[in-house]
Amino acid sequence: MTDLRYPIGKFRWDGAMTDARREECVSRIAAAPGLLRAAVSGLDDRQLDTPYRPGGWTLRQVVHHVPDSHLNAYCRFKLAITENEPTIKPYDETAWAELPDVKAVPISTSLTLLDAVHERWVAILRGMKPSDFERFLVHPESGRQTLDQVLALYAWHGPHHIAHITSLRQRNGW
Amino acid sequence: MTDLRYPIGKFRWDGAMTDARREECVSRIAAAPGLLRAAVSGLDDRQLDTPYRPGGWTLRQVVHHVPDSHLNAYCRFKLAITENEPTIKPYDETAWAELPDVKAVPISTSLTLLDAVHERWVAILRGMKPSDFERFLVHPESGRQTLDQVLALYAWHGPHHIAHITSLRQRNGW
Amino acid sequence: MTDLRYPIGKFRWDGAMTDARREECVSRIAAAPGLLRAAVSGLDDRQLDTPYRPGGWTLRQVVHHVPDSHLNAYCRFKLAITENEPTIKPYDETAWAELPDVKAVPISTSLTLLDAVHERWVAILRGMKPSDFERFLVHPESGRQTLDQVLALYAWHGPHHIAHITSLRQRNGW
Amino acid sequence: MTDLRYPIGKFRWDGAMTDARREECVSRIAAAPGLLRAAVSGLDDRQLDTPYRPGGWTLRQVVHHVPDSHLNAYCRFKLAITENEPTIKPYDETAWAELPDVKAVPISTSLTLLDAVHERWVAILRGMKPSDFERFLVHPESGRQTLDQVLALYAWHGPHHIAHITSLRQRNGW
Repeated sequence: MTDLRYPIGKFRWDGAMTDARREECVSRIAAAPGLLRAAVSGLDDRQLDTPYRPGGWTLRQVVHHVPDSHLNAYCRFKLAITENEPTIKPYDETAWAELPDVKAVPISTSLTLLDAVHERWVAILRGMKPSDFERFLVHPESGRQTLDQVLALYAWHGPHHIAHITSLRQRNGW
Repeated sequence: MTDLRYPIGKFRWDGAMTDARREECVSRIAAAPGLLRAAVSGLDDRQLDTPYRPGGWTLRQVVHHVPDSHLNAYCRFKLAITENEPTIKPYDETAWAELPDVKAVPISTSLTLLDAVHERWVAILRGMKPSDFERFLVHPESGRQTLDQVLALYAWHGPHHIAHITSLRQRNGW
Repeated sequence: MTDLRYPIGKFRWDGAMTDARREECVSRIAAAPGLLRAAVSGLDDRQLDTPYRPGGWTLRQVVHHVPDSHLNAYCRFKLAITENEPTIKPYDETAWAELPDVKAVPISTSLTLLDAVHERWVAILRGMKPSDFERFLVHPESGRQTLDQVLALYAWHGPHHIAHITSLRQRNGW
Repeated sequence: MTDLRYPIGKFRWDGAMTDARREECVSRIAAAPGLLRAAVSGLDDRQLDTPYRPGGWTLRQVVHHVPDSHLNAYCRFKLAITENEPTIKPYDETAWAELPDVKAVPISTSLTLLDAVHERWVAILRGMKPSDFERFLVHPESGRQTLDQVLALYAWHGPHHIAHITSLRQRNGW
């Protein structure tokens, strides 16, 4: 039986990275804004206010969450490149998803926000040497990790949330 | 042998339209900006300056052409809804693809332009009654046609150009 | 007594154009999207639904009108550069301002649309030689006119509508 | 003699805040993206690569810096609203201004990024009660401060950088 929370499976990190896999991760990150935009195309307000699973975020919350998450990721890469093993600041994604911008701001704004953040983020990623991906950041809860691991996480994170949307649309025949 | 000019086939209009097919056409138009954005993600300048087929437009020209075409289409719908069988003004797409904005402006601007034009266009399409799609416009060369036909044409046109890009990427292993 | 319809005065064309005046017109066109965005910043829905003068368009209609007008202008320049004295297709701006996209689409989308159209339009304008501005288009009602005249018209048109908004804000203390 | 680094003066915080002053700060933040866009309109690459003062950032660096700074500010507000006196993570703005996205990404992307971040940030600010502005965050270097102080800082920060650009344009007759 499928766990609706993980339509493409949980993120797993096996510690292995190659140039080809890095390139594929960057490509996935580059493609995510367009795929998210296509995934929500044509949805009306009632559909956007539907939870992607019972008890889960609404599609609207999912859309606004993705740029919140990825602008934090963008900052974490820049921090880890410009500082020595910085301890980054996590945020409470559950609480952020309840803040008033989620209802007040149209999703088109967050789609555009994601486009723009990814464009700058991908420029950073493409400017990094292989050794830069071996730099560390420290997450107060999940610990010390390489940028390779963070890269793989976010290459998974976009498709993960996009699949929340596309799988609900499929189940509901939208 | 495949004709590289028509990766998804030529547009054909059989004159038949139903509510369901209309809805599908609108959905395709709504999805096109995200799919175009995903189709070009991660391409560098050299790749963008590659023709999608020998003698054809470069990918860069394709990307800038799509919003030029669709903002004209958006206007044609508005004209046909607010006037009685207006004669629309065609444009020389070959000449427009050689104008200097194509080289001077980054493709991200045209992707954003397409997002925004489609958002207003789709709002128009979703606000139309079935009888509105039976209204006519007159194209000086191809003649009098219903908005149903124009709708079907543009539901094909986005995926047509997107396939120019994705099929080249596949052939070149990009 | 001020005519609220013309806060910066009516457009006047005296037929004179110089390189410096052309440059100033292009600069005004380039600056308009930012100034429109600043002019509406912080307005709420009730304010946006207020007519800029008794019996006039609401601020929301004004904002959506500007990109509709300017994407037509952008096309007219491209037509006149690529064809010999083309007859352009006017549109019924009064009817367009009543179409459903005006209510359905957030103004942020039209502000972004304006940014993107102007970026391509300004690239065209900056790529034109002085002699290109002496090319003609034919407006079915107002007749044959040079691109210099059209340029001057649109250099006035953005500030004209921006002043509708800023003058109402000033009168209402918003 | 004017200090070119501080064209509108240094930021000063006197600890006093009123509802009216808060409202004015939010309005300044809301207006900043449009004013920045207008401030750089029509600049060419050579002009963008000119330092705003001898030894200072280029205009291009200034433009890319503003959204980097403000997306951090946006996060700090959300952190301080959802956590109890969080210690935020500063970033090295000097080092970030040298990262490769600054040269690789067109300024139009960062202008659009700023539009979108401000739209969500302003929605947060408008959703805050007066008591929310009395919440604290802790900056590792500058210490514990209220959101009122952070608000005033960023209401100054946008115009501060915009004035770097407009004052150079004025001095250079651009």
